[in-house]
Amino acid sequence: MSMEKVVIVGASGYSGEELVRILSQHPFAEIAGVTSREHAGRPLAAVFPRFAGTRYAGLAFIPSTIEDIIATGARIVFLALPHGVAAGFAAPLIKAGLRVLDLSADFRIKDMATYAEFYGEAHHAPELAAMSVYGLSEIYRGQIKAAQLVACPGCYPTSILLPLIPLLRRRLIKAGSICVFSMSGVSGAGRTVKADLLFAECNESVRAYSVPKHRHLAEIEQELSAAAGHTVAINFTPHLIPVNRGIHTTIYAAPEEGAEPSQIAAAFAEEYAGAKFVRILGDAGNLPDTKMVTGTNFVDIAWRHDPRTGRLVLLSAEDNLVKGAAGQAVQNLNLMCGWPEDAAL
Amino acid sequence: MSMEKVVIVGASGYSGEELVRILSQHPFAEIAGVTSREHAGRPLAAVFPRFAGTRYAGLAFIPSTIEDIIATGARIVFLALPHGVAAGFAAPLIKAGLRVLDLSADFRIKDMATYAEFYGEAHHAPELAAMSVYGLSEIYRGQIKAAQLVACPGCYPTSILLPLIPLLRRRLIKAGSICVFSMSGVSGAGRTVKADLLFAECNESVRAYSVPKHRHLAEIEQELSAAAGHTVAINFTPHLIPVNRGIHTTIYAAPEEGAEPSQIAAAFAEEYAGAKFVRILGDAGNLPDTKMVTGTNFVDIAWRHDPRTGRLVLLSAEDNLVKGAAGQAVQNLNLMCGWPEDAAL
Amino acid sequence: MSMEKVVIVGASGYSGEELVRILSQHPFAEIAGVTSREHAGRPLAAVFPRFAGTRYAGLAFIPSTIEDIIATGARIVFLALPHGVAAGFAAPLIKAGLRVLDLSADFRIKDMATYAEFYGEAHHAPELAAMSVYGLSEIYRGQIKAAQLVACPGCYPTSILLPLIPLLRRRLIKAGSICVFSMSGVSGAGRTVKADLLFAECNESVRAYSVPKHRHLAEIEQELSAAAGHTVAINFTPHLIPVNRGIHTTIYAAPEEGAEPSQIAAAFAEEYAGAKFVRILGDAGNLPDTKMVTGTNFVDIAWRHDPRTGRLVLLSAEDNLVKGAAGQAVQNLNLMCGWPEDAAL
Amino acid sequence: MSMEKVVIVGASGYSGEELVRILSQHPFAEIAGVTSREHAGRPLAAVFPRFAGTRYAGLAFIPSTIEDIIATGARIVFLALPHGVAAGFAAPLIKAGLRVLDLSADFRIKDMATYAEFYGEAHHAPELAAMSVYGLSEIYRGQIKAAQLVACPGCYPTSILLPLIPLLRRRLIKAGSICVFSMSGVSGAGRTVKADLLFAECNESVRAYSVPKHRHLAEIEQELSAAAGHTVAINFTPHLIPVNRGIHTTIYAAPEEGAEPSQIAAAFAEEYAGAKFVRILGDAGNLPDTKMVTGTNFVDIAWRHDPRTGRLVLLSAEDNLVKGAAGQAVQNLNLMCGWPEDAAL
Repeated sequence: MSMEKVVIVGASGYSGEELVRILSQHPFAEIAGVTSREHAGRPLAAVFPRFAGTRYAGLAFIPSTIEDIIATGARIVFLALPHGVAAGFAAPLIKAGLRVLDLSADFRIKDMATYAEFYGEAHHAPELAAMSVYGLSEIYRGQIKAAQLVACPGCYPTSILLPLIPLLRRRLIKAGSICVFSMSGVSGAGRTVKADLLFAECNESVRAYSVPKHRHLAEIEQELSAAAGHTVAINFTPHLIPVNRGIHTTIYAAPEEGAEPSQIAAAFAEEYAGAKFVRILGDAGNLPDTKMVTGTNFVDIAWRHDPRTGRLVLLSAEDNLVKGAAGQAVQNLNLMCGWPEDAAL
Repeated sequence: MSMEKVVIVGASGYSGEELVRILSQHPFAEIAGVTSREHAGRPLAAVFPRFAGTRYAGLAFIPSTIEDIIATGARIVFLALPHGVAAGFAAPLIKAGLRVLDLSADFRIKDMATYAEFYGEAHHAPELAAMSVYGLSEIYRGQIKAAQLVACPGCYPTSILLPLIPLLRRRLIKAGSICVFSMSGVSGAGRTVKADLLFAECNESVRAYSVPKHRHLAEIEQELSAAAGHTVAINFTPHLIPVNRGIHTTIYAAPEEGAEPSQIAAAFAEEYAGAKFVRILGDAGNLPDTKMVTGTNFVDIAWRHDPRTGRLVLLSAEDNLVKGAAGQAVQNLNLMCGWPEDAAL
Repeated sequence: MSMEKVVIVGASGYSGEELVRILSQHPFAEIAGVTSREHAGRPLAAVFPRFAGTRYAGLAFIPSTIEDIIATGARIVFLALPHGVAAGFAAPLIKAGLRVLDLSADFRIKDMATYAEFYGEAHHAPELAAMSVYGLSEIYRGQIKAAQLVACPGCYPTSILLPLIPLLRRRLIKAGSICVFSMSGVSGAGRTVKADLLFAECNESVRAYSVPKHRHLAEIEQELSAAAGHTVAINFTPHLIPVNRGIHTTIYAAPEEGAEPSQIAAAFAEEYAGAKFVRILGDAGNLPDTKMVTGTNFVDIAWRHDPRTGRLVLLSAEDNLVKGAAGQAVQNLNLMCGWPEDAAL
Repeated sequence: MSMEKVVIVGASGYSGEELVRILSQHPFAEIAGVTSREHAGRPLAAVFPRFAGTRYAGLAFIPSTIEDIIATGARIVFLALPHGVAAGFAAPLIKAGLRVLDLSADFRIKDMATYAEFYGEAHHAPELAAMSVYGLSEIYRGQIKAAQLVACPGCYPTSILLPLIPLLRRRLIKAGSICVFSMSGVSGAGRTVKADLLFAECNESVRAYSVPKHRHLAEIEQELSAAAGHTVAINFTPHLIPVNRGIHTTIYAAPEEGAEPSQIAAAFAEEYAGAKFVRILGDAGNLPDTKMVTGTNFVDIAWRHDPRTGRLVLLSAEDNLVKGAAGQAVQNLNLMCGWPEDAAL
């Protein structure tokens, strides 16, 4: 069987680097190109010493142009670019008939007014946003298989949506009661050279940010609304904690009248039957711990019912760079190509 | 002016060590004794190398007996002991006329049924629990001044109560809507030798614990109920994060009908007028960051109103060993002795 | 091709856990059993939540007895046990004809007087020590292939020997001038529940230990002496730093008279030609950084000549749990079975 | 007694911030001004939220001009500026009769050729370099008292010189045998916004840098040569480890013929008699641990003799921002003003 060629555009950030790491193990996909404005011409291992001695060590970065990308012969392209930059690549690649896995926020939002509200400008390619599939693998598996443009979810949304969607779809919780609290490792901010991301500013520190309106709320509420069948607004507060990797989310939600605790377990079992990367820890035993998922594509989900307040507590953990970014993108690649969903993962 | 003698019982834990650090700078109090079953006879600096070359380096640990404590001539005693052990010391010391600052949970709970529910056994000295004053300095300042037995609050409760009490007292938020998430550094677990507190188990890890019913809920709800004038039950989830020190708390609460955002600022300004250790960051600008308070007795409080859900987001940060333990205990000592509230702090 | 069955004895420590992680990816080896006195009967994923959903999640721990091990049908056994305990398993397993990969220090030392000096008691099975092969893969490749008992090196020795052996073998440095300084992550101490390994005691801390005579000196000097052709004594100081994984070693050594800097590069190139896991960074460009090797079986080696003092500075980095323990053990397994040396690595 | 006014020039870096922290506790010195090009006009607490509610919270930054500095009426000025920038301030301030405590490298080197070799350009004010006193408090106490210009040592040099000078002065070790390894927390790199200082690049990482010729070698060798009475060249390798604060140094040195181990202890006792901030841990018991000195002006020194190689192992620990920078600068201020050497420390 010949290998499917893929290209990673913008491979010099953390998500791009993680894509290289994962795809280096892929049995069916071959990295035909990595692009970087800054590093064009340099071999991968010169930019990422970690990859010396591995499969793609000698692969040289190519310039980030449409022509160079198409010239690789790849038919599938990962965009690991900042918000706003990805859209400029997606349009010509789609037009040229390639399939695109976009890790940025550019095509996640379906409602253009919401996009403008959260991202501060009108969307440049609403027709592409309309045709994109939201790449939450377990929820949109069927559509992803056939998609030409997959908008991979943000790291926080993945950790929040997977615990909530099964419950909202089954009317087990009150949408208006959802209160979310997440903590992320610093790699979630990308390889951005900013003073407040310096080691000595993050270590021995924890702080909330983007309160009360983080951009990820746009896609979170879009998908929660789709699951609930009506418009949902929630509270969400992200916190930066001194770990490299890992997102932990804790959610409070009030059960709907008449919903039984036992229905929670049933909902998860049903929704995620056969989902290899969702580990349901249940309502007893271990709680999610990021160190149990870092370096893997798993998301761990547990819950507890609090009889004192009546609320449900939902907890999840994932690796923000794997299930929260590159891993889920490769999971989507596997779906798109009809390979085993866990190839290389 | 002669120095007031104090004794620290159980000085070998993190809170005890922190008491020594703070009291080493105290202009009016003198450490007349430190006790330890394990270290009796050894000088302080032999047990804590950090104190070599400082004021109390040569002070030898004395046995943890009532006689030894009384023999120091001290009239005020700090109990930095595990839950359940402190009560055995408090009773005879109180009887002997000494004043006691207890850092354990033994005398924080007024309702004996609640105590039994959360601590798993009947209280051994209900009459002492009845006479104790809850040592949340800013809230019980007057009673602390005259108290013989002060039950210093837990680390989490301090970070949760200070933002909430002013709002509950003024009926600005709905008590039933309160949802609390906290994160604590690992020193909060004490110098307990357990596998899950090893470096390699905590570093690059974050996890919730004691879900949904952490013991601190007992005192938190007791004090929230007192502020609200009726019984309050809340959700509270503590998380362990890889920092040595620091607690960060994020709270969601729904405003009462008719409550205006501007009343929030007024409530804090009024409640904490003259409170040196409560820094009100307000509803704009900086959010609390634990690194801004570690090593200090400050608690930083900020809030944001979310017009999308109508909820209020309250955020606070403190050093769990200072304002959350030893610092607040010294603040209470200062109140009890009529010294400046910030002496040594 | 049928899978080769292996057993991991003592799988509940960090090295044992890492063996499971690596062998889970192995194309030719199958874990036929994991043993644990403490966890016998429990499935692997119940003890290590990280492995839920992976290949061996349901494999139940068996008791740590020779009978149980042999009953698995495995012909190769990993011993991931504390020093002193491994020897008791090795003897009967060897007698029963199985091949043993021991990760402890029990069979590394050939000279029984040296063993007694460093380990404080006479060796219990000198005949096994005599027949064992020191499992430094790149140096003893040929002997390992045929060995029945492989004594895998300690984590520090691997990082020290690989840079030094090529130079001593070629008389390029003066053996008496070697000064070694290493730093290790806390997992190197094992899952040992001791107060000084608690998070709050290791974080924001660095300290040397076992000065001046760490036990690893015994094997380091044994192997340096073998390379030099005469007895070598060196200085070695290990330091504990707040990372989970990684060893970094810096070495000073004086060149032999007449040795040319260019010969250093030639020595490494010659010695490690075809060695997939030794990455020679050379005398310019990147210096070793543990984050470039964690999670991999690579060891990175660089050097600089200092014309001011005439000394050579050698630097290396490895993952203490991979190339420094479980990874090298699997590399040796591959050699013993005639598989590609990098299978699963 | 009226307060002595001081100014901190360049107060927005870590050393400047630490000077503010320490001087906030000073009983005799008053911060009359803090300067910053970037922050002029803003109050201290707006730039450093940590200082809200403390003594100088409201002190506004003034522009970094000579006129503004002189206009404060201060007679002593701290320069917490980058290398090369400090010299431009020192000259006019010295000419105006002020006393200057420079924390940069600008005036540490006496030999102008050495300066040019290590700093890559000719010195701009050799006459100031000639008049400056090297501010290693314990070694130059007498000269510091009378100095107009004190060149405070670098963080690494302090940790290296204090263990070595007493031994070199007494001919107890061979100068040519000195091999130094140091590890520093990331704050040592300053608040420099560079990619390799990002949290995710430093956490779970350790690496050497500036091998084999770090700039601090210039001052280290200058002072070792002065102590030895002849030119000394050493090896020194700094390593970056993931802690905020702390430097740990390990040194190997060969004793001079006839030097007795007992003379080591005597040398330290004699040299540092009355030195409050040098804690001699000796040749048994605790080894230095950075967490025992962070936040303090102490430097801890221990040693071991290795009979196997004959070498001496010297170990030290300090807080790079306190004894390694701001603390030692204040210690020097105290000497210059005739105050107790430990005022505010």
